[in-house]
Amino acid sequence: MSSSFGKMLTVTIFGQSHGEAIGAVLDGLPAGIRLDFDAIARFMARRAPGGALSTARKEADQPQVLSGLCDGITCGAPLAVMIQNGDHRSHDYDKLRDLPRPMHADYPAAIKYHGCNDIRGGGQFSGRLTAPLCFAGAVAGQLLAQKGITVGAHIAAIHGVEDEPFDPVGIDAETLRRVTAQAFPTLSVQAGERMQREIEAARQSLDSVGGIVECAAVGLPAGIGEPLYESLESRISSLLFSIPAVKGVEFGAGFAAAVMTGSEHNDPFTVQNGVVRTATNRHGGILGGISTGMPVLFRAAFKPTPSIARPQQTVSLSQGCEEPLQIEGRHDPCVVLRAVPCVEAAASLALLDLMLESKGRDQWN
Amino acid sequence: MSSSFGKMLTVTIFGQSHGEAIGAVLDGLPAGIRLDFDAIARFMARRAPGGALSTARKEADQPQVLSGLCDGITCGAPLAVMIQNGDHRSHDYDKLRDLPRPMHADYPAAIKYHGCNDIRGGGQFSGRLTAPLCFAGAVAGQLLAQKGITVGAHIAAIHGVEDEPFDPVGIDAETLRRVTAQAFPTLSVQAGERMQREIEAARQSLDSVGGIVECAAVGLPAGIGEPLYESLESRISSLLFSIPAVKGVEFGAGFAAAVMTGSEHNDPFTVQNGVVRTATNRHGGILGGISTGMPVLFRAAFKPTPSIARPQQTVSLSQGCEEPLQIEGRHDPCVVLRAVPCVEAAASLALLDLMLESKGRDQWN
Amino acid sequence: MSSSFGKMLTVTIFGQSHGEAIGAVLDGLPAGIRLDFDAIARFMARRAPGGALSTARKEADQPQVLSGLCDGITCGAPLAVMIQNGDHRSHDYDKLRDLPRPMHADYPAAIKYHGCNDIRGGGQFSGRLTAPLCFAGAVAGQLLAQKGITVGAHIAAIHGVEDEPFDPVGIDAETLRRVTAQAFPTLSVQAGERMQREIEAARQSLDSVGGIVECAAVGLPAGIGEPLYESLESRISSLLFSIPAVKGVEFGAGFAAAVMTGSEHNDPFTVQNGVVRTATNRHGGILGGISTGMPVLFRAAFKPTPSIARPQQTVSLSQGCEEPLQIEGRHDPCVVLRAVPCVEAAASLALLDLMLESKGRDQWN
Amino acid sequence: MSSSFGKMLTVTIFGQSHGEAIGAVLDGLPAGIRLDFDAIARFMARRAPGGALSTARKEADQPQVLSGLCDGITCGAPLAVMIQNGDHRSHDYDKLRDLPRPMHADYPAAIKYHGCNDIRGGGQFSGRLTAPLCFAGAVAGQLLAQKGITVGAHIAAIHGVEDEPFDPVGIDAETLRRVTAQAFPTLSVQAGERMQREIEAARQSLDSVGGIVECAAVGLPAGIGEPLYESLESRISSLLFSIPAVKGVEFGAGFAAAVMTGSEHNDPFTVQNGVVRTATNRHGGILGGISTGMPVLFRAAFKPTPSIARPQQTVSLSQGCEEPLQIEGRHDPCVVLRAVPCVEAAASLALLDLMLESKGRDQWN
Repeated sequence: MSSSFGKMLTVTIFGQSHGEAIGAVLDGLPAGIRLDFDAIARFMARRAPGGALSTARKEADQPQVLSGLCDGITCGAPLAVMIQNGDHRSHDYDKLRDLPRPMHADYPAAIKYHGCNDIRGGGQFSGRLTAPLCFAGAVAGQLLAQKGITVGAHIAAIHGVEDEPFDPVGIDAETLRRVTAQAFPTLSVQAGERMQREIEAARQSLDSVGGIVECAAVGLPAGIGEPLYESLESRISSLLFSIPAVKGVEFGAGFAAAVMTGSEHNDPFTVQNGVVRTATNRHGGILGGISTGMPVLFRAAFKPTPSIARPQQTVSLSQGCEEPLQIEGRHDPCVVLRAVPCVEAAASLALLDLMLESKGRDQWN
Repeated sequence: MSSSFGKMLTVTIFGQSHGEAIGAVLDGLPAGIRLDFDAIARFMARRAPGGALSTARKEADQPQVLSGLCDGITCGAPLAVMIQNGDHRSHDYDKLRDLPRPMHADYPAAIKYHGCNDIRGGGQFSGRLTAPLCFAGAVAGQLLAQKGITVGAHIAAIHGVEDEPFDPVGIDAETLRRVTAQAFPTLSVQAGERMQREIEAARQSLDSVGGIVECAAVGLPAGIGEPLYESLESRISSLLFSIPAVKGVEFGAGFAAAVMTGSEHNDPFTVQNGVVRTATNRHGGILGGISTGMPVLFRAAFKPTPSIARPQQTVSLSQGCEEPLQIEGRHDPCVVLRAVPCVEAAASLALLDLMLESKGRDQWN
Repeated sequence: MSSSFGKMLTVTIFGQSHGEAIGAVLDGLPAGIRLDFDAIARFMARRAPGGALSTARKEADQPQVLSGLCDGITCGAPLAVMIQNGDHRSHDYDKLRDLPRPMHADYPAAIKYHGCNDIRGGGQFSGRLTAPLCFAGAVAGQLLAQKGITVGAHIAAIHGVEDEPFDPVGIDAETLRRVTAQAFPTLSVQAGERMQREIEAARQSLDSVGGIVECAAVGLPAGIGEPLYESLESRISSLLFSIPAVKGVEFGAGFAAAVMTGSEHNDPFTVQNGVVRTATNRHGGILGGISTGMPVLFRAAFKPTPSIARPQQTVSLSQGCEEPLQIEGRHDPCVVLRAVPCVEAAASLALLDLMLESKGRDQWN
Repeated sequence: MSSSFGKMLTVTIFGQSHGEAIGAVLDGLPAGIRLDFDAIARFMARRAPGGALSTARKEADQPQVLSGLCDGITCGAPLAVMIQNGDHRSHDYDKLRDLPRPMHADYPAAIKYHGCNDIRGGGQFSGRLTAPLCFAGAVAGQLLAQKGITVGAHIAAIHGVEDEPFDPVGIDAETLRRVTAQAFPTLSVQAGERMQREIEAARQSLDSVGGIVECAAVGLPAGIGEPLYESLESRISSLLFSIPAVKGVEFGAGFAAAVMTGSEHNDPFTVQNGVVRTATNRHGGILGGISTGMPVLFRAAFKPTPSIARPQQTVSLSQGCEEPLQIEGRHDPCVVLRAVPCVEAAASLALLDLMLESKGRDQWN
């Protein structure tokens, strides 16, 4: 089992890449909220394939609402959406049941499910399952916006080419909105162009590249999140590691903190206009699992797309011997661009769930 | 809420650093298992303060079993343990209610709990709460050992001084047992000595240092873990980020994957003695959230101990102005040594929980 | 939130009576199971409206599988099904937003959801939501059947007219199959005919009647279920009270136990063909929350259909005054006939979930 | 697994009757609440053995708080309590491992736990485990009281001798407080005396008797509870069936609704002082799983104490043959008196948990 997360707002995601449909059920949305479906479509379009740098597979990805609305307003029933699948070229995948693709889930899934897993297009392991995640994240983002919270991410690096980082202290909603509105979301236009050249070069050489997404949430009040096992970091990382290709997650200074001394790393408290803040933000907006009121900042590392056109070595599960493998079909040489809204969606869902929990308990009196 | 995790084996942890007691309730252990309490004590001793490099605070940390055993064997009832607190010097912390310590949970906890949180010794945010986590992890480790699974970790780095990494393909149970039996668990004795000098230097300069723990699990069969939201990475990272001071988590190649191409990163499949393996192990033993049968490998970054003896700047919550702060009391200049068994405990608990789930469902037929 | 249940097998149900579609997501089914969709359709047909004694509303109720199968076999992905809605006469319900129907959820839902709940056809509170429950229950029943477990129910009473009870000790799978195959499932044909006359009389007098369903599960091995909060009774009752109109649940002797002495109530143990059994079965197959190997037996009481054609008194929420109400539309004069498979579905799902859990943990060694 | 319940407020209960200690961990209490421990002690005393009509076993049952408080006020950490066990006469139970007691959990527990379960005093199945439940319920009751909600119960029947029922419409907090303050909580003094004679007669004849507890909650606002699987009835019944000896649960008219017509059963809406109410309360204060603002009313049936001094028939598990059994030790001839606060505790915990959830979500805007 695997397909649900969240406590006050539980999201269940279903589907296989080449099945009838994929979708999501959002259970626990407050009633009485008018959703902006144009904004949801714009958010999902950021994840959809299409640009010159992405896969040629066309997906309509039009979410069809099955329940949860009445006259366009949330009504207390679970919000269920379905996205029809189509445009299958399933024959591309036929041989893969015997020849697991390196760095894909094919082999462990074959063991786990006794060879009954859906191998077409990656089945339930496909990156396509992030479409309903983005739908859910877009909805969560609209509720967060009601409370003055903005979540946004940019491409921090592609194959070693780095963008400027977010200003950990000064990052604001306007900057987040501006960068996420770009077709290629980087703070530095030049860095973005260099990254796109890296991706194109990978495509030309029948290879792929990885990268890093940096995400920020601003406007989150202090006091959200729970200590220990429902910490903001636990919840956000748990969702991030559910996105295919994520290999690492770090908050604030992250791995760099490991080479610092305490006197270098500690953020001094300060007061600005009567509000407690920190002068620097190496803590990433979270202490003890709870938001501090500073921008929440984290980064997720994505591996290079495993499906590359170059010949690779695998094994024949039926023959028990090594076999060469040539992967066909259309594949992104880099998933990072399309992963940006997925990272935002994961953060938005974790934040909203913990805000609902905090509202219920911390505001009891 | 925050204190429970796990589905088939649910662990609930309670306590404050200077309260009556801390403890854990393990609900869902199979019945009929004789626990080795000497081994549990040895495991917990690795986390306990005491060595020259750790805090001077003495803790007996003797876990007292309240329920769950009958004649020393698990009986189906929840296994509840309590560790008495003692040796308090709570007056050290009195002023901290007004002056939150930089990089500690004091400030967000004060907001969240309306100033009612227990400030003494960090309250429920104290690293002391990892003692019951280690108890639980030691128990889980004994069940895993029944199935031929060994979990072990070493200090991969302190303040930039690096140990040799685990051999991603060849790491074995014997190596894990040997390194974890050391007082200072590094593969390279020389690296360990340099690390200890770093820690001592930090102490001398009234400062602290961070570092990295690398953990491996060997013997785990392929097919454990669930896709998406109960992926091995989701579960393990969720627990790791519940350990105080963890700022980053990466699996396999981790953040380094972000600078690789697919052809560099992909692990070719191979067959050894009839068993499917990968020739390299940049995937870290997990694909699609599911174990592949290769060693599970991950790293966790720890920040420098936030409590340093140097003067720092904070704010007076009552006065709304900046104030200097001199932290007193005894503090580790580096938490990484004591964190090693905590990381193993988190991994063991995540693995056992997912194994119980897999056994129930994947072996239905 | 409300729409999910189960731990190893989590079922999420969505939809509103007059929305686009209703459906269910079953997450946690073992892979590799070929489902018999004809049998599922037959099971669901028992719940569907249609007979002379039921509502005239026609529902196709054809479940459309969106995901979870590959070549007709469960593949490890969540099994998602959708049932299109159609045949709406929503204008029947327009005035009900202001005039809550007595004994329906209209009034508390209006308060809870700030008037935004879907009032058409009862919205998410409609008995129509038991269609996906029956789908899920039919699937669960097929897995139970693999293990030799049969669940079946009959109408024990309608408006005081009683059927013969199941033989608590001797009830067998053959009897359960026979009675559930009947259009009107009673053990006594005569009792069934009298009950149908009661229902018809209620219809003639523009009224409705309640009744009782008795359910049995045979073939369940001893040792299934967990003490205390995951007891068989807790799980089954929790699901039963989710079925609209259920007002009471009792196991074994149930309320009758309250008027017995211990010497009258206690079931003596006995040995038959080397198997431990009880000579009588007032305990209903469950002791301490765990199955004993005897037939599991319970009863659920259903209230009379609240929608009756007679004039009733309600209040105008907008005017704050009492108003007469005449309910129009088509309504069953008795829900008990269609509730029989719902009760079986609830029992099957609870049993399967706890069996998966027991398999994972109790068979560890 | 079995020992936890609740979503926003999770209660974990641990212990065996004759182990070191029993206890509870309450995770999710709002911070900043001063608990009245005298009131908790009074509540728990109602469950404690002691009176002439109860078992002679003396329990101090003094709950010792291990964590969760700071200066007597909830601090955001889990509230953990321990109750030491003592006064064991464990030798009474030695032979029971081979000879399961009729109507106890001994036999299914032996199967489930492979004979490793703690047989002494019933182990984890003992009614003694309701002591921490009552502690938790007393705490929950104090939070409910802050919001004007009162929960109280009385003995509705013992062995067929019936008390007056609560007035379903007019029951008020004052009546609940008065009846629960009585040593033998019945509305009619005469009925109470007759009940006590029934219990005494059962004792004299080495037998036992069952009975019914009726419980009410007043002051609960409309809109609490969730449709379907987190309905008020689902949550309350799930907890009630976790109390040993409960065999049936009914809400409002309950099983009596099954013999009514809709026109007899439906409660007309009315307006009193501008508030929507129902003129009668056969619905028991809940419609569609959600509170209506009318008193919540339900009844729980308790079986006769299974441990009776008369000779009974059981089987020898080792010999596979029938054996006579003479149960020794001290046992209540009727558990109903001590069950009254347990029923209130279950209701209070279910209500508080759903109120916290409702506050978080339904009051989002």
